[in-house]
Amino acid sequence: MPKKLTIVVHSEDLDKIYSALIIGSGALSYGLNVTLFFTFWGLRRLIKGNLSKAPLSKYNFLGIGSWAMKRKMRKSKVISLNELIHDFKELGGKIVACSMTMKVLGITKEALDQSLIDDYGSVGTYINESKDANITLFI
Amino acid sequence: MPKKLTIVVHSEDLDKIYSALIIGSGALSYGLNVTLFFTFWGLRRLIKGNLSKAPLSKYNFLGIGSWAMKRKMRKSKVISLNELIHDFKELGGKIVACSMTMKVLGITKEALDQSLIDDYGSVGTYINESKDANITLFI
Amino acid sequence: MPKKLTIVVHSEDLDKIYSALIIGSGALSYGLNVTLFFTFWGLRRLIKGNLSKAPLSKYNFLGIGSWAMKRKMRKSKVISLNELIHDFKELGGKIVACSMTMKVLGITKEALDQSLIDDYGSVGTYINESKDANITLFI
Repeated sequence: MPKKLTIVVHSEDLDKIYSALIIGSGALSYGLNVTLFFTFWGLRRLIKGNLSKAPLSKYNFLGIGSWAMKRKMRKSKVISLNELIHDFKELGGKIVACSMTMKVLGITKEALDQSLIDDYGSVGTYINESKDANITLFI
Repeated sequence: MPKKLTIVVHSEDLDKIYSALIIGSGALSYGLNVTLFFTFWGLRRLIKGNLSKAPLSKYNFLGIGSWAMKRKMRKSKVISLNELIHDFKELGGKIVACSMTMKVLGITKEALDQSLIDDYGSVGTYINESKDANITLFI
Repeated sequence: MPKKLTIVVHSEDLDKIYSALIIGSGALSYGLNVTLFFTFWGLRRLIKGNLSKAPLSKYNFLGIGSWAMKRKMRKSKVISLNELIHDFKELGGKIVACSMTMKVLGITKEALDQSLIDDYGSVGTYINESKDANITLFI
């Protein structure tokens, strides 16, 4: 049975979504099964158009700024979040949207970029997928 | 032997404590053993009265605000942190307070809501409980 | 075979680096193998002289401040980050610097405190070390 990695993507910070997707795609290319659970602020990144928008990152306050960061990443030929999430999907990664978050924050299915989402689930879905996982992270 | 979940609750952000308790209670209802280790800023949430107070969340700076968030959660019939932590305890969840944090931040046992705490422990307690856990998270 | 703990150190917040090192050293003293992967903002803490500098912590905005925190920690005889990371190394802990972060943020090997670093690696290194780990955290 292949090894498994699950990540709860709670944050919406640009840098943390990057880490989640890079770790996820890395694990896929090593043969692991990978599921990302987008919840709370993280789920807002799956709203149509939000992956390419400036993030509400604390680094905006600290003088680095998302614009400067994106420019730096572009200069080093780091791919964008949009490309990264599509690569993740193509490699076979699974994305679950937290249905409780949708209710609490008033996010409809129509608002979300459904091309990215494989499933809608609750904490039960997460526990079921994670209890046999080899790597479990909360980002 | 039942499966096990442990979480280090390092953050005091309202939304992160929510996630910790929801994941914890979800795991309990699926038959897992669950222990939450409250440390650093997270431990301050166990000071008497602090669970219902406005959180020192970064989202206060970002125009969402804890008041608006609480109102939204109330409207969607999401239960409060106070209810959530009591449900977690009733389901059999275990809460450990970090004794080193108590020393460093000058928090006495008397200051903490002892009805919530099952045990006082150090990093050794955490490692012992986590080395055989199936899901380990840092929140 | 000894049990294993891996931590992705993504944050550069003083309090989170503390937690990573305390959990890491604790695990080492219980006989586990421990590897910390310093990435993104976390990696900047391994730049020469940066471990003792004031952290870009959100707590600076919240009236606690790194100065007050350091003072409190000194008063409670909590050891400094510098001492902590050297203890971690002496106990046999392993530190991997993320080579992709170095490229993206333009950090050279010469800029990093090489006495702290055992290896330079990518996400593949992380997955290889973590897929058989017993405790996996993202900090």
